[in-house]
Amino acid sequence: MMRGRVAYAGAIHEAYPHQIGVRLADGRVCKENEVVWLSPIEPGTIFALGLNYAEHAKELQFSKQEEPLVFLKGPGSVLGHRGVTRRPDDVTFMHYECELAVVIGKPAKNVMRNEAMQYVAGYMIANDYAIRDYLENYYRPNLRVKNRDGGTVLGPWFVDASDIDDVNQLELRTYVNGTLHQRGNTRDLVIDLPILIEYLSSFMTLAPGDIILTGTPDGIVNVRANDEVVCEIDGLGRLVNVIGSDAAFNRE
Amino acid sequence: MMRGRVAYAGAIHEAYPHQIGVRLADGRVCKENEVVWLSPIEPGTIFALGLNYAEHAKELQFSKQEEPLVFLKGPGSVLGHRGVTRRPDDVTFMHYECELAVVIGKPAKNVMRNEAMQYVAGYMIANDYAIRDYLENYYRPNLRVKNRDGGTVLGPWFVDASDIDDVNQLELRTYVNGTLHQRGNTRDLVIDLPILIEYLSSFMTLAPGDIILTGTPDGIVNVRANDEVVCEIDGLGRLVNVIGSDAAFNRE
Repeated sequence: MMRGRVAYAGAIHEAYPHQIGVRLADGRVCKENEVVWLSPIEPGTIFALGLNYAEHAKELQFSKQEEPLVFLKGPGSVLGHRGVTRRPDDVTFMHYECELAVVIGKPAKNVMRNEAMQYVAGYMIANDYAIRDYLENYYRPNLRVKNRDGGTVLGPWFVDASDIDDVNQLELRTYVNGTLHQRGNTRDLVIDLPILIEYLSSFMTLAPGDIILTGTPDGIVNVRANDEVVCEIDGLGRLVNVIGSDAAFNRE
Repeated sequence: MMRGRVAYAGAIHEAYPHQIGVRLADGRVCKENEVVWLSPIEPGTIFALGLNYAEHAKELQFSKQEEPLVFLKGPGSVLGHRGVTRRPDDVTFMHYECELAVVIGKPAKNVMRNEAMQYVAGYMIANDYAIRDYLENYYRPNLRVKNRDGGTVLGPWFVDASDIDDVNQLELRTYVNGTLHQRGNTRDLVIDLPILIEYLSSFMTLAPGDIILTGTPDGIVNVRANDEVVCEIDGLGRLVNVIGSDAAFNRE
């Protein structure tokens, strides 16, 4: 089942795909642009993987890491489908990162890899933006690179794990203004989901609603104000958002 | 005003200091050990400062940084007063870090340092534990160092900013099993609160409930299972917790 979370007419609603746009839980049907899309999940801890596709690591000229390269993102960076992500006006390189987002479904501590997938509730598309200008140290991307307003776009749908036949065979695609720039497949993940869950749960308890952004394949380009960025993953839908300049945000 | 948050008799209550322990919002009075203490604040984004006291940076043999060294902690690491923090059985050095925790009171974006303190709701004591064995890179402490269960102890009280005469003159003290090991003063912060808030709000919007752990002074020692660790800060109270071995947690 695919479900989203939207604001409409004074309230927040669970919502489902519909031929003309979106059906709210109360039965109303709206066009996609008549509602405000929120993250499908109220996030707990948000983990993000760096350099988890070999070709992307090569693209950034980094060698393969020994241990999962995981950092945290804050809830303040989260944005839903059709939201606007800020671009600082004085940077030279901001890029999207289309990623499979894994949502934890039940508490997980000391979980072994062969049982790890039982702890996954489902999946979303994530666009994990980065400002490369500020990247001082690839090993722990700093806040200014990764934690800006709108830097973690999630949605439009949360999809139950049972609806995805093979999570290790999903194609990811990113389009900027309609042109395909990034294309990858989850079969190329350096560290796969079971090992990630085993690793994280070995030193902390994962909670329902925790989200793991599993890294991005190669194919990153600079995005500019007013660009429309679309991330697609097989079976998860199509996550659209727009880049806005900081100056436009700060207009008096 | 000092207020805490405790679980007692089937519910969570706001609670206040009382001569014999704690007074609940509904008027009941309990002894300190009759309630379960939770973090006084449901945290939003938790920021933590590394190496923000010069003497502590020296102690770790690091030089003073150019820019605030900020990393994030996840909500899963948070624990209240009198909680038990896990210590892995196979590590050689785990230490406490007594820190002034600053709680943001209203949304803050592009705030200048001379107005920054208006955005502070109040303060708490934090104990920001670290497992030094896993510290690969001081510049972005990794998850295994800083994000373990019980690695962020907060409380017992949230204290309104207006109740603290001079936040730049608060003494911090940490006792292990009754012996004073760490003693510092917020006047020695390398990067003070107004500059921190100016820095963070320059690239993201801070939200009410966001928490900034401002770093720890020198005086860190190894702690072991069953140690009682007490952090005190002038005007904020006394935060007690205990170290438990991982083995004890995992007992069948």
